[in-house]
Amino acid sequence: MFYYKLTLAYDGTNYCGYQVQPNVTTVQELLMKAVVDLFGPSATITAASRTDSGVHARGQVVLLKTEKAIRSEKIPMALNVRLPDDIVVVACNTIDEQFHPRYVEHSKTYEYLIYNGPYHFPQDIRYSIHYQKELDVEMMQKGADILVGTHDFESYSSAGKSVEDTVRTVTAISVKKTNQMISIKVTGNGFLYNMVRIIVGTLMELGIGKRDLESIELSIKERNRQLTGTTAPAKGLTLQHIDYLKETQHA
Amino acid sequence: MFYYKLTLAYDGTNYCGYQVQPNVTTVQELLMKAVVDLFGPSATITAASRTDSGVHARGQVVLLKTEKAIRSEKIPMALNVRLPDDIVVVACNTIDEQFHPRYVEHSKTYEYLIYNGPYHFPQDIRYSIHYQKELDVEMMQKGADILVGTHDFESYSSAGKSVEDTVRTVTAISVKKTNQMISIKVTGNGFLYNMVRIIVGTLMELGIGKRDLESIELSIKERNRQLTGTTAPAKGLTLQHIDYLKETQHA
Repeated sequence: MFYYKLTLAYDGTNYCGYQVQPNVTTVQELLMKAVVDLFGPSATITAASRTDSGVHARGQVVLLKTEKAIRSEKIPMALNVRLPDDIVVVACNTIDEQFHPRYVEHSKTYEYLIYNGPYHFPQDIRYSIHYQKELDVEMMQKGADILVGTHDFESYSSAGKSVEDTVRTVTAISVKKTNQMISIKVTGNGFLYNMVRIIVGTLMELGIGKRDLESIELSIKERNRQLTGTTAPAKGLTLQHIDYLKETQHA
Repeated sequence: MFYYKLTLAYDGTNYCGYQVQPNVTTVQELLMKAVVDLFGPSATITAASRTDSGVHARGQVVLLKTEKAIRSEKIPMALNVRLPDDIVVVACNTIDEQFHPRYVEHSKTYEYLIYNGPYHFPQDIRYSIHYQKELDVEMMQKGADILVGTHDFESYSSAGKSVEDTVRTVTAISVKKTNQMISIKVTGNGFLYNMVRIIVGTLMELGIGKRDLESIELSIKERNRQLTGTTAPAKGLTLQHIDYLKETQHA
């Protein structure tokens, strides 16, 4: 078998998320079609992240296993001609067979964009949400600082998708405003379902004074989805990059 | 008469430039339709810049003269509901009748984006060009520094559109690379036809070693379009903002 690590970028606007589902178009479905067309039906793909409907990626990681070897530098173009314009393989390298995109230790960085001004620029509509009420970025950063660390994030997970272990480590959250665009970057070793979007929704409530810092502290002491804010819309979220700590890459 | 200064943002992809032309759709045509619908047929609009086909704007300035007064803070929304999603009035204020968007002293800032990596990300396709050959950004900045100042820029003007006075002042050019995206920002008090795109095309030739700094010096000593590079494609260019030096703004 041959093992390749693909880095995938996509505009999630027209897809019902990454993972294959019946009756809707997903990124995985189209990537799998391209892979099978190029490598034959025994090839498999395994992604690091099952991004939701409407969420974008600049650095999704996909493990490709095949029985057929193709020089890794030829693979992106060979797949890209078989993919629509809004899904692009941006890098490929051969990789050790021990590599697994989800089980090998890694950190993921997501970015959420909020346009915090009166009128949303047409150039920004696809990748940011529009929020007119002024957000206090400094206050949002203070709330974010409380969330950084290893906590039980059950309050930040969508109901009905509960998992046994809801402890996660968030290594960094930055909240920055440039002109009227607010960028919230969240890095961690794994995320619960909708966790980043609930963090963003909660920090936005903090930013308009609808909640205080104590409520953020409470949200990680208690395990209750009622204690956190609404789930921010999908289109503002982009999976930026995934960094593997002990990756064995080949040329 | 009532005088308003509009700030206009648009995605130029689907338009044959700003200015009205027969048989094609332009930004001015659609803005004029919206203005007439709102203010009546005697209203007029005058833009600061006639951006070319495919060029984008985040800060086009348009003077609106009308016989009907509407509170300026109501105007953007009233026009935006009459405009397609890719044209947005992002600001409006009343302004002195002495104001003219082209004749009052101002500086314009354009930004050109070049994605300088192997595969163009789908998120970047609309507002940047893709150039795979590695560009030497430091060398491009050195060339840009030669162009800054008051010079005869006839070598940087498209043939067939010559004007008598081809002396212009470029007050700043910055060439910066973030990840694999190169941003070239050009600020000046006025530009010849295609001037920014020819500056970019020329600096790109410098960046791949196809020309040297002496050729840039020669290009502003001589007045010859043959001495400069190709006109870079429209879609990488955005009119970012226009700053008026002696503007009399009202609330």
